[in-house]
Amino acid sequence: MRNIALVIAYKGTRYAGWQRQQNAVSIDETIGDAIAAVTGERVTLYGAGRTDAGVHARGQRANFKTRVRMPADRFAPALNAHLPRDIRIQKSFEVPADFHSRYGAKEKTYCYRVWAAPVADPLTDDFCWHVRFPLNVDAMRRGAAVLVGTHDFKTFMASGSGAKTTVRRIDAIGIEQKGRMITFTFCGTGFLYNMVRIIAGTLVEMGSGRRDPESMAAILAAKGRTAAGATAPARGLTLEAVAYGEEND
Amino acid sequence: MRNIALVIAYKGTRYAGWQRQQNAVSIDETIGDAIAAVTGERVTLYGAGRTDAGVHARGQRANFKTRVRMPADRFAPALNAHLPRDIRIQKSFEVPADFHSRYGAKEKTYCYRVWAAPVADPLTDDFCWHVRFPLNVDAMRRGAAVLVGTHDFKTFMASGSGAKTTVRRIDAIGIEQKGRMITFTFCGTGFLYNMVRIIAGTLVEMGSGRRDPESMAAILAAKGRTAAGATAPARGLTLEAVAYGEEND
Repeated sequence: MRNIALVIAYKGTRYAGWQRQQNAVSIDETIGDAIAAVTGERVTLYGAGRTDAGVHARGQRANFKTRVRMPADRFAPALNAHLPRDIRIQKSFEVPADFHSRYGAKEKTYCYRVWAAPVADPLTDDFCWHVRFPLNVDAMRRGAAVLVGTHDFKTFMASGSGAKTTVRRIDAIGIEQKGRMITFTFCGTGFLYNMVRIIAGTLVEMGSGRRDPESMAAILAAKGRTAAGATAPARGLTLEAVAYGEEND
Repeated sequence: MRNIALVIAYKGTRYAGWQRQQNAVSIDETIGDAIAAVTGERVTLYGAGRTDAGVHARGQRANFKTRVRMPADRFAPALNAHLPRDIRIQKSFEVPADFHSRYGAKEKTYCYRVWAAPVADPLTDDFCWHVRFPLNVDAMRRGAAVLVGTHDFKTFMASGSGAKTTVRRIDAIGIEQKGRMITFTFCGTGFLYNMVRIIAGTLVEMGSGRRDPESMAAILAAKGRTAAGATAPARGLTLEAVAYGEEND
């Protein structure tokens, strides 16, 4: 069996998320149907990040096994011919038999976008959380700096979700403002369920002055979901990239 | 009667364009319904630019007459409460009785966006024309330079449409590339029907090498629609701003 890797971009607005669902259309199922149309095979698609309903991706990664002999780079255009416009396979290539998109991922980059202005912007609205108040970028940067490094991020995991360990490493959190758009960039080895959105929600509360950025160390140390701020809406989140090490990127 | 001016942003994807249509939802009608809900009055909404189906706006302008005494700046939030998310009134203010959004417009700025890459980008797809081939920006700039100034733009008017005069003045055409996104910015006193899209379509043919940029003077001089390139798709076009002179901006 050949192992084919995909780089995938999608607008998550219309979808129930990456994972297959009863009674709702997922990205996994939609791409699986396209693979079936191209190869005649029903395959398991291993996705790097199981993005939630409404979350977008520019550089999602997935892989599947196939017996089909088509040149690996031809899978991308062949699948695109069977996919809706809001999902595009950017690239397809062959990887070693033991490559797994999820377990092999070394680093992920997510962006969270906020539109901070009295009135929403219909042109970027599908990809941003609209907050009506101005945000203090310096305050948010002070709060974010506390989270960089290896920590137990239990505070920032959705309650009810399980994980073997809640220790993760965040390599960088960038916060950039361009006009009314504020983009948070998170790079790390992996993220707990809803972790990026809960951190974004907490930072926005610090940016708005409702929460003191100096409290971030105590929030992290609390190791309980209630210590953190609200979960920021899905629409603002985009999985930008997944890195594996040079041989499989 | 008071004269209320609006600055309007919208994503045109779901609409049949600015103008009222039979059996299709227009921006004009949607905002007219919101005005009726707020004021109890059925008004005529005068729009600065009658954008086509699928065309977007960040700085569309419109005005309407009302007897309602509400403070002028309160119309924007009141209307937004009755509008779908993809239309947002950015600002509302009172203007002199003789102000007319369309006839008073001194300059309009449109952007036309092209995504030039083998694969489309689902995250910007609603706002871009996807072309699969690379574009030579220098060639397009040479072609565009010929159009700047006061000319008879009959070549670039959709056939079958009428206009008292086909002479217009283009003050500037900017062409900027950022990664795979190329943005054309057109500033001018006014534009003929489909003029921006026909110019964009012609420039893209020059950028792809299918048409010589040195032929632009002859295309302009031909004064016939068939001399120009194809009309670029509506989705790439955004009415960015309309200027009136400082007192009404």
